Amino acid sequence: MTGSGPIFVPKGFKFSSATAGIKPSGKPDLALILADRNAAAAALFTKNLIVAAPVEVGRRSLAKSRGQVRTVVVNSGNANCATGHAGVAACKRVCAELAHLLRIKPSEVFPSSTGIIGAQLPSGKICAQLEPLLQSANSSPDHFRQFANAILTTDTRLKLASIPLRNGKAAVTGVAKGSGMIHPQLATMLVYILTDVAATPADLRRSLRNACADSFNAISIDGDTSTNDTVLLLASGVSGVQLGGVQREFEAALLEVCQSLAEQIVADGEGVHHVVRLRIEQAKDRAEALQVARTISTSLLVKTAWAGADPNWGRILAAVGRSGIRINPRKVTVLIGDRKVCSGSVACPFDKNIAHQELAKPESRITVRLGRGRALLNFLTTDLTAEYVKINADYST
Amino acid sequence: MTGSGPIFVPKGFKFSSATAGIKPSGKPDLALILADRNAAAAALFTKNLIVAAPVEVGRRSLAKSRGQVRTVVVNSGNANCATGHAGVAACKRVCAELAHLLRIKPSEVFPSSTGIIGAQLPSGKICAQLEPLLQSANSSPDHFRQFANAILTTDTRLKLASIPLRNGKAAVTGVAKGSGMIHPQLATMLVYILTDVAATPADLRRSLRNACADSFNAISIDGDTSTNDTVLLLASGVSGVQLGGVQREFEAALLEVCQSLAEQIVADGEGVHHVVRLRIEQAKDRAEALQVARTISTSLLVKTAWAGADPNWGRILAAVGRSGIRINPRKVTVLIGDRKVCSGSVACPFDKNIAHQELAKPESRITVRLGRGRALLNFLTTDLTAEYVKINADYST
Repeated sequence: MTGSGPIFVPKGFKFSSATAGIKPSGKPDLALILADRNAAAAALFTKNLIVAAPVEVGRRSLAKSRGQVRTVVVNSGNANCATGHAGVAACKRVCAELAHLLRIKPSEVFPSSTGIIGAQLPSGKICAQLEPLLQSANSSPDHFRQFANAILTTDTRLKLASIPLRNGKAAVTGVAKGSGMIHPQLATMLVYILTDVAATPADLRRSLRNACADSFNAISIDGDTSTNDTVLLLASGVSGVQLGGVQREFEAALLEVCQSLAEQIVADGEGVHHVVRLRIEQAKDRAEALQVARTISTSLLVKTAWAGADPNWGRILAAVGRSGIRINPRKVTVLIGDRKVCSGSVACPFDKNIAHQELAKPESRITVRLGRGRALLNFLTTDLTAEYVKINADYST
Repeated sequence: MTGSGPIFVPKGFKFSSATAGIKPSGKPDLALILADRNAAAAALFTKNLIVAAPVEVGRRSLAKSRGQVRTVVVNSGNANCATGHAGVAACKRVCAELAHLLRIKPSEVFPSSTGIIGAQLPSGKICAQLEPLLQSANSSPDHFRQFANAILTTDTRLKLASIPLRNGKAAVTGVAKGSGMIHPQLATMLVYILTDVAATPADLRRSLRNACADSFNAISIDGDTSTNDTVLLLASGVSGVQLGGVQREFEAALLEVCQSLAEQIVADGEGVHHVVRLRIEQAKDRAEALQVARTISTSLLVKTAWAGADPNWGRILAAVGRSGIRINPRKVTVLIGDRKVCSGSVACPFDKNIAHQELAKPESRITVRLGRGRALLNFLTTDLTAEYVKINADYST
């Protein structure tokens, strides 16, 4: 299943959550993944040069432990970003305390934070909850859902995806939070994917990189890259299924889980009324397809037209023209749904009402053909609504 | 003066305007500049690879005539873009007809268009008005203002700037239209600057390039580059003042005219409530300062925070971090007004209410220090309001 179906909890992992009092709302704000023994791990982090303390610490710990993770501790309500040396120290304090309780090395603890930036992390409140968190950890789907709930900030729904492997002998299961720049301060996308397949960190890294390229790296709500973004893949190996024996099935499942979570994030994007499946065809290579897709999907002109379901292809064409790719205007074609609206950069006769209806659907399709090669890319993006501006313009202090 | 003061009409130019019926509103939509004899000319055009027919024709004509322009014909209400071969033919027809009436070469006619894209230019309607346009051309400030009015689309005000040289012996006078992506289809920035100083096209080109770098190339309302953007500088030489004798005075006046028009364009930006003077300091060079300024000024996170006068410096910091410049986070400082809000990428204690009040002003100042060098850049940009989204999301067909 992806989305709302059954959860197959990979063997070898337990989950718990708690309310540490970081969120003023009093909602759960602390969550734990505990592996029975060290899991093989691979992670991808934000490309933003301004990174939060847990990203700095987590990256170093993974290097130090050579991709071994015993436990993941996540707090919501505070991003621990732009907090300087004090922020790094607070993050390390939490990891050290948890390592002490588990009698493991601090580098085998993986930390994450999401929430407000610029405020110091209340590490005391977190440390006070670590023992109860460990004691209540359990492998039930319910506990997994509680974990998924405790990592949310202003997301409106849980984001889960789970796929069984080898008829249920193993599984790939992911959980995510994030909906663009959902928080008045800064958004974060956190993704945790678990499997009980046996794999090395190096194999996991390769698989994760490929899966992310066609999922989390092919979406845009607002074009802003968070300082905390993290995707972590953990393999417990407890199923006894070796990665080598299920390579294709595993990679297909991993991609499906990543794509499902990416779609759930986009659909829950702040103020989003329309999701757009943007397809770039006839690019020279994937990189230039991505550059065109990102230019289109971050154009205010284009995104506001989508909000009004306006089949205003001129805005899309103009975005292609300024994308930095040396297109030949005479070879550029734009389709709304299955209808050509512009060919060789010249208007085609088309029924504006039919095109409007296509764009008025909750999910619509737009294709841009560049006439330069054979590469193609599917990219998921959204409109930009007045509601989005209102939410993000609210003066919060 | 710049803005609303007196107009010094450079000697050697006449102006007229007409209603050709291109705009459905019935407002003036055709405008003419007529030089007494060929004026030396320099022009800068949009960098978008999708360019309108008049940009294509105008660029070629300037090359053919070696920078000699006798007359400029501008229509509003139709951008003549994405109109293919027929669009180029329509543009050439207007130029040929006007050349015939004046007994000059078609390459001495400079065409411009602004308005809806993807619709064929009604060249017949335009040609029918060319004789009356020539007959009514006059050098009075009133006729100049009528020209300025007829080139507008949904701008809310005339945009003029005029500076006398040598105690009034000569002048530099500019007129512009554009307010971001003001039109539901596509925006255009058109700027015409006239002087009666005597100069060669090559000298004009050099001066114009410098002046634009610190004016029209240092503003952003929405990050979208139009397909029709044109800045044209014409020198009649009728004052008898040689450029060589007033080089510094002329360049200062040209820069002031360009900056004034750029500021008028930003202030008239669609749905704009707050203008932000963004200053990038301690950059290695101007190019990287510009890259950082453009990343900040096109970030939805940042622009929506400005709409709410929210002193949310974390969003600015995150934009700097993803700008592509290899900044060292420990050296980045952000100021709102004169107050440091973040130093070394760490929060500074500051009074949020005072910072909010600074940002609530119609025009506020934000400074970002990169800690990389000595280059600095002043950049003019705006907030992003719900009103802007509403205007641009209106389904127009």
